[in-house]
Amino acid sequence: MAEFDLIERYFNFHYDFSSDLAKTSSKNSNKPQVVKGIGDDCAIFEIPEKHQLVTSTDTLVDGVHFFSDLQPDLIAHKALAANVSDLAAMGAKPLAFTLSISLPDVSEDWLKGFSEGLKRASELFKVPLVGGDTTQGPLNINITAYGSVKKGRLLLRDKAQINDDIWVTGFLGEAAAALDLEDKALESKALSGQKKLTDAEQALWNALTQPIPPLTFAGKLTKLSSCGLDISDGLMADLGHILKKSECGATVMVESLPVSDALVEVVGMEQAQQFALNGGDDYQLCFTTSSKHRNKVLNLAEKHGVNVSRVGSIQPEDVSIQLHGKPFTSNRASWQHFYKD
Amino acid sequence: MAEFDLIERYFNFHYDFSSDLAKTSSKNSNKPQVVKGIGDDCAIFEIPEKHQLVTSTDTLVDGVHFFSDLQPDLIAHKALAANVSDLAAMGAKPLAFTLSISLPDVSEDWLKGFSEGLKRASELFKVPLVGGDTTQGPLNINITAYGSVKKGRLLLRDKAQINDDIWVTGFLGEAAAALDLEDKALESKALSGQKKLTDAEQALWNALTQPIPPLTFAGKLTKLSSCGLDISDGLMADLGHILKKSECGATVMVESLPVSDALVEVVGMEQAQQFALNGGDDYQLCFTTSSKHRNKVLNLAEKHGVNVSRVGSIQPEDVSIQLHGKPFTSNRASWQHFYKD
Repeated sequence: MAEFDLIERYFNFHYDFSSDLAKTSSKNSNKPQVVKGIGDDCAIFEIPEKHQLVTSTDTLVDGVHFFSDLQPDLIAHKALAANVSDLAAMGAKPLAFTLSISLPDVSEDWLKGFSEGLKRASELFKVPLVGGDTTQGPLNINITAYGSVKKGRLLLRDKAQINDDIWVTGFLGEAAAALDLEDKALESKALSGQKKLTDAEQALWNALTQPIPPLTFAGKLTKLSSCGLDISDGLMADLGHILKKSECGATVMVESLPVSDALVEVVGMEQAQQFALNGGDDYQLCFTTSSKHRNKVLNLAEKHGVNVSRVGSIQPEDVSIQLHGKPFTSNRASWQHFYKD
Repeated sequence: MAEFDLIERYFNFHYDFSSDLAKTSSKNSNKPQVVKGIGDDCAIFEIPEKHQLVTSTDTLVDGVHFFSDLQPDLIAHKALAANVSDLAAMGAKPLAFTLSISLPDVSEDWLKGFSEGLKRASELFKVPLVGGDTTQGPLNINITAYGSVKKGRLLLRDKAQINDDIWVTGFLGEAAAALDLEDKALESKALSGQKKLTDAEQALWNALTQPIPPLTFAGKLTKLSSCGLDISDGLMADLGHILKKSECGATVMVESLPVSDALVEVVGMEQAQQFALNGGDDYQLCFTTSSKHRNKVLNLAEKHGVNVSRVGSIQPEDVSIQLHGKPFTSNRASWQHFYKD
């Protein structure tokens, strides 16, 4: 099958959004919008004054970020979630995404599953597919996501202030635990359907394969915070980026980390806290705010149905990880591509 | 080596453009511009009123678009050229690009060569690197390019009018001939340096490995044309996209195709014409204009040092390929990923 046919058959579902697009462009032309999607050499955006276009790109590779025997709809979800998470990390509202996919050969079943998963995720995250390309090669999925912010209303890494509260959204560590936990055993249980997962195991599996970044909350958060990122490499690694760029230190209170009942049930509290500190693939937010905004953060989170936890504070220097005020030793290196011992 | 170190060491050269960026933002804030590059979760653009952001993404895969034993600086050039060519295809001015690269392992030599080639190409095309990501996996190079156009001043595929002239830039078929011509033999001659290439062979090799899309010309062309694309899959295949979208046919005059002396010297006139019709990887433009603009097209091309050839005309229906008015049989299927006989 030719590239053009592939694209037309499996990836030409952006028209589901055409009514939304039409609404946007006719009723409110001063909103950022997509004016042309799939079908020409490029996608086209209009970004009115007072707004900025934000863009991020991320690749998922077979055997590194997922295994190709994973259901293709789950691979698609994960790929899109990881990318819109980068938009949330900036406090941006998603506008659109493009997909570049390399496939070893054309399996219609796989493509059907993948495109269905992608369509579902694009509807869930309210972000249309507007272009891309397909090539032959080892399975490699690259997504570029486009979003918009009001000018200067961003979550950046270099804006943490001494004494700021440090917050995280959602629950941490579930995805890493799912990966770690008898690794392929859990996966094959989930895939085969032969052996039933416990509810708790299923919750971890879902966190790993179907993360849902707090997009709407992130877009509103820029009223209260100008410093944040998403937790993809583990809380301590990602908080580390904030500390490095903001030239400061932090105290992290391990007892305040959001660990889910499911995680504690499966791995116990001590391991749960270790996963929450250093596990990757969470796609939640870590952000800092002035302590005077404490109640406003809680109210905003409640309004959007998002769990938030105040897990520490920004300090002039040094990083201290404490459990009930006593030093806590982290036992796990955070995830790094090309990591070498 | 960790991902962050890789990026910092090899891909953090966008600051070469910082003086240009500063100039742009202080002197002329109503120009499209990059306001944030590498170092946070996303890159950020400002696209003032009356402009649109244009974006395109393209992947090069080892063994499909190049062989990994090709010099890494040439791979980098080709990857960036293919992407800015998509901007030229829309008549857009390049603004920036992001790079997502998967690497099987960290070869410092390879990365050094690749990043040097990328830096040179980014300076040649005047387009800064503003973000991206590195992952471990089979070699896969994805670039997303960003450009801007004045609102509505675009080259599209669906704007051809009956009786329009059909034009192409540059010379066609050289890259395809280089690939085809005793394939690896020419490549290994070029690589080993042991056996000297003839000047003509070198010209074909350069066309294949270091294409230079007519970027500046493309940006100005939108005054005269609103229909065009770049020739990456071969003239007839790409012209076919225009005909399909514009719902019309065409006559192509084979004797008017721009075949270089080098190409004719190496493969003879007949094969040269076949390559010019159907060879891929040209990264030149095909566009249509009203015949009343004929002289203006020639003048614009001369001003920008670009070769242009009028190779046919848009017709109500059917595609006719003629050599001196007689039917000409094309002997080569154009390039298609996943092409199956």
